[in-house]
Amino acid sequence: MFDKEVYVRRRRTLLGLMKDTAAEDSRGIAIFLGNADAPQNYRGNDYKFRQESSFLYYWGIDEPGFAAILDLDSGEECLFGNDVDIDDIIWMGPQPSVASKAEKIGAGKSAPFKAFCDNVTAARTQGRRIHFLPVSRYYNTLLLSGLLQCPPENLRKTDGETTASLALTKAVISMRLIKEDCEIEEIDKACEIGYLMHTAARQNCKPGVKEQDIVGIMDGVTLSKGWGTSFTTILSQNGETLHNHSHHQIITPGRLLLIDAGAESNTHYASDFTRTLPCSGKFTQKQRDIYDIVTECNELAYTLAAPGVEYREVHLAVAAKMLDGLKALGLVTGHIDDMVKEGIAGLFMPHGLGHNMGIDVHDMEDLGENLVGYDEGQTRANQLGLGSLRMARRLKPGHVITDEPGIYFVPALISKWKSEGTDKGMVNYGRLEEYLNFGGIRLEDDLLITENGCRRLGSKRLPITADEVESAMASE
Amino acid sequence: MFDKEVYVRRRRTLLGLMKDTAAEDSRGIAIFLGNADAPQNYRGNDYKFRQESSFLYYWGIDEPGFAAILDLDSGEECLFGNDVDIDDIIWMGPQPSVASKAEKIGAGKSAPFKAFCDNVTAARTQGRRIHFLPVSRYYNTLLLSGLLQCPPENLRKTDGETTASLALTKAVISMRLIKEDCEIEEIDKACEIGYLMHTAARQNCKPGVKEQDIVGIMDGVTLSKGWGTSFTTILSQNGETLHNHSHHQIITPGRLLLIDAGAESNTHYASDFTRTLPCSGKFTQKQRDIYDIVTECNELAYTLAAPGVEYREVHLAVAAKMLDGLKALGLVTGHIDDMVKEGIAGLFMPHGLGHNMGIDVHDMEDLGENLVGYDEGQTRANQLGLGSLRMARRLKPGHVITDEPGIYFVPALISKWKSEGTDKGMVNYGRLEEYLNFGGIRLEDDLLITENGCRRLGSKRLPITADEVESAMASE
Repeated sequence: MFDKEVYVRRRRTLLGLMKDTAAEDSRGIAIFLGNADAPQNYRGNDYKFRQESSFLYYWGIDEPGFAAILDLDSGEECLFGNDVDIDDIIWMGPQPSVASKAEKIGAGKSAPFKAFCDNVTAARTQGRRIHFLPVSRYYNTLLLSGLLQCPPENLRKTDGETTASLALTKAVISMRLIKEDCEIEEIDKACEIGYLMHTAARQNCKPGVKEQDIVGIMDGVTLSKGWGTSFTTILSQNGETLHNHSHHQIITPGRLLLIDAGAESNTHYASDFTRTLPCSGKFTQKQRDIYDIVTECNELAYTLAAPGVEYREVHLAVAAKMLDGLKALGLVTGHIDDMVKEGIAGLFMPHGLGHNMGIDVHDMEDLGENLVGYDEGQTRANQLGLGSLRMARRLKPGHVITDEPGIYFVPALISKWKSEGTDKGMVNYGRLEEYLNFGGIRLEDDLLITENGCRRLGSKRLPITADEVESAMASE
Repeated sequence: MFDKEVYVRRRRTLLGLMKDTAAEDSRGIAIFLGNADAPQNYRGNDYKFRQESSFLYYWGIDEPGFAAILDLDSGEECLFGNDVDIDDIIWMGPQPSVASKAEKIGAGKSAPFKAFCDNVTAARTQGRRIHFLPVSRYYNTLLLSGLLQCPPENLRKTDGETTASLALTKAVISMRLIKEDCEIEEIDKACEIGYLMHTAARQNCKPGVKEQDIVGIMDGVTLSKGWGTSFTTILSQNGETLHNHSHHQIITPGRLLLIDAGAESNTHYASDFTRTLPCSGKFTQKQRDIYDIVTECNELAYTLAAPGVEYREVHLAVAAKMLDGLKALGLVTGHIDDMVKEGIAGLFMPHGLGHNMGIDVHDMEDLGENLVGYDEGQTRANQLGLGSLRMARRLKPGHVITDEPGIYFVPALISKWKSEGTDKGMVNYGRLEEYLNFGGIRLEDDLLITENGCRRLGSKRLPITADEVESAMASE
């Protein structure tokens, strides 16, 4: 938890932003629902508690069972939650009172949770505007659809009268997009843990080891040093499958191991790194040829990312660089500009170059991907690859983004393009056949946009060039 | 996943049990909802997938997005789920068809998920009885309350017309309570992982280490060797707090470290062990005095647990043994029988002796604690301690239960009893004051009831006597 002043300032800023919106948006109450526990197999055996990210940002409380109201008309704030009884003390230990928790975050008032429900119901019956953010969790969906007497599906939308508040959502996004110094410090910490987890993975990437063994070691590091992983660890010798969560294979010489994994700090800030390792400790020439293209793409994005530059343009520059490299290998053919325009890079990189990162590893994704990642006036493309770009905005100091180019050979996608002629004659399928068992390579760093350019987050960078990786693996 | 025959047999048995119920219960359809992914901080960034336990038991499929129907009238079975498209293949890799998944579990038919919704809606409009189990997850609550057009709260109850099916719930409980050989094999595997995780914890329990570091190492072992933990690891030097999940303290000489933790095998069977370690490697005499009582209680339960014995009686025998030991230390006073009757043991052990264990660590808890843990005719006590007993039944071969006595000194509870006179003069508060900073001790093994008695699950037992623990710690 940060100092009280951080939360007070954030809520004052938010109130100001709401006051600046159209008259009908500037009135009423803004409600914030913290998360409840989420049952794993039964209620009581819950997943590790994760607080709702915007609740954490404005109200700091990292426990289940809280909610808050910011009254836009009076400026009054209230934190809602229940004090513990003797049963709670036996099972969970003595706890500070809700009043003292409110005090720690500078919220003027506190009350039991039931008063939250009563307040929302009263506001509804009085016809006051009730602002809320799109709801992620199903528990809160049930709760809020009951309180607001609206269909559950409305709670995820921001485009209608009885849906989540577009004005509040935009105001929150505008604040959370630009990271404060205290947040950058926490993201750096998450990156340190990410460095440790990837280092442990590399040290354990030896022929004969089961993939699951390595995942456990990595995830264990995140639990020892932070809250846990910032997302389910991706570790696979089938790197061409972007989010592969099966880990039953044995590390096999000659294959590539793609590891996309990050940590969440104890204060819930994320890191997100990808490295691709040669299982035998040495890349083959064929692997190295592709690997070097991805390294160059990663480096290019780092070189270009700076205030005033659209990240969408960086994605396209990377696509051009990638196609240039693939052309040199005889895998594609034609003018680079034409290939970029036709989205040929999407066959090899069917995802975007990067995303915002903060309290969520895909920061604020549930507030609306386009609201978060696209400036007003930017429209999202419909092309494979570019269409998946989650962060297209003109960069500003304080943005934290990932830089994660990749090249994959996805047999099902290749045969689909071939049969449908999607490539307009620019792909050399004969040559591509030699790569059907190649797998995939992705290389990812986390960038902070600074006043003049950007810096890689974390104090140490994981080995990334083919030579660095081979030399690290040789010494381990 | 087990062989096809296991699932076919289980569903046939269930159908038979339903046919044997009262006429109105034996008709209609039984529906089984698999789990959906549960969002952690946003949809798409989900908690590690955990299948619904009874779905796993009858239908074996360990992936999100499935449901099934067993038609009680026709005996027909159908598995519902969606086949993947090209986008899914890019992100998740090629997947077997739903039809081939149905084939692997011997389900005669399969269909897309939408057909499940259509079938349930049709059954509802036709006025057919729709049997379902109490629902744990909020996603399924939303789904089913929509399909059945009933209030969400009904889906957790088994005591009315439009609630979960009592007949189906009882039939499922009767089957899952008695573990099959293939299940016991899996529980043994989970116990092997539990042994490894506790061993790693003991080896890392050294003054100066942070509690969280040890938790990460333990949880990492469960992720390397199995699905993960079977419940959130409890590791605390404040052992008097039964479920303490804060791990920020540093291991301090002279204190006790209580570790209650278990693993879930890759097939989702649980283990659950507790050990309490002296942080300096040696117990003080005062600690050893209490520790020895708990060891004896644990041993007594193991000696008594056998077919035909009510586990409620074992709990009471343990309470008597515990009070006997505490009396020898001058902490309580009076006749043992009177103290047992008045529930004095509850001040020191405010929980039950054990619970059923299987696919859930508290097996089937969401099907109804009393339905699962109490025979018809047994009523649950209202006393602190005994009232928390989750497994009271007359034991049968195939039951898997925990044996987990504990002694805790909970300051808030002691002062409550003192001020309210709950102890009827049987507690020596003067002497008890010397124990207010003691913490707590719990010792837990997992037992399988056999034809003649019981056996401890797992091939090796964790060191448990004070001497065994000290000697293990001295050599590590």
